[in-house]
Parts: sequence; structure tokens; C-alpha cells
Amino acid sequence: KSLRGLGMELRCRCIETESRQIRRHVKEVEIIPANSHCEESEIIATLKITGLKVCLDPEAPWVKKAIEWWMSR
Amino acid sequence: KSLRGLGMELRCRCIETESRQIRRHVKEVEIIPANSHCEESEIIATLKITGLKVCLDPEAPWVKKAIEWWMSR
Repeated sequence: KSLRGLGMELRCRCIETESRQIRRHVKEVEIIPANSHCEESEIIATLKITGLKVCLDPEAPWVKKAIEWWMSR
Repeated sequence: KSLRGLGMELRCRCIETESRQIRRHVKEVEIIPANSHCEESEIIATLKITGLKVCLDPEAPWVKKAIEWWMSR
């Protein structure tokens, strides 16, 4: 759930990912494709009420379904 | 390609979407699910070199494929 500093990132931003299915609590998501600084794609969700940012696991089936659902609305 | 102001948005942020397939030029994407302020989901890509933000069409097949590709890397 913790996240390194934002802004110009020179390494991965996610330390761990949220395992609970929080689709309804998400205001928006950022997908950061793997790049020279971080070899894994990262997904950072901003929560509705608190505005907190949490990392989601790009491999998790519920995350893939949630993104398809958000894009189709 | 134009985009209304950022920050706390009280309406849709995208006026038009980029039709060219620009997957390789994208540093990250934001997916904003439809909400009380904007009835359509919006996808905003940040470009690598310029840092410019452009809107992508959530319905466009190449956009759906690009997001799948980014998440699988």
C-alpha cells in the first residue's frame, strides 16, 4: 500500500499491491508501462473518498476486469 | 487533442481524442471512469518526450490492445 514519492520517478513506485477488490472505491487509475527505471508495469489507483493512492497488481484478474469495466462505461 | 484544465474536474476533460496509434510515444495513461461530472470514461495519455497530455478513445480497438500490452509487460 505504500508508495514511493511521486513526480519524476527514477525507480519503481510500488512497494506492494492492494489485494482486496476495491473497484467501487477507485476514482481513477494510472498505468505506467515498464520503462528504463522500472522493469514492471505499475498501476496506481486514486481512491474516491480519501484521495489516497494505492498500487494494484497488473496480473490480478480482478484488476484486468476492473479496467475493462471502467473503459466500457 | 485539447484538454480542459486539470485538478478537481467538474466536467469531462477531453474535447477530442487522438486517432493516430501512438502507443510507443506514451509514458503513462490515466483512466477516469465515468462519474457524476462526466458520463463517459476518459483516457488521458502522457507522452514520453514532450510530456504533453492527449486524450485517447476508450472504444478504439488499438487503445484497448495498447492497455492490455502495457499491463502485460
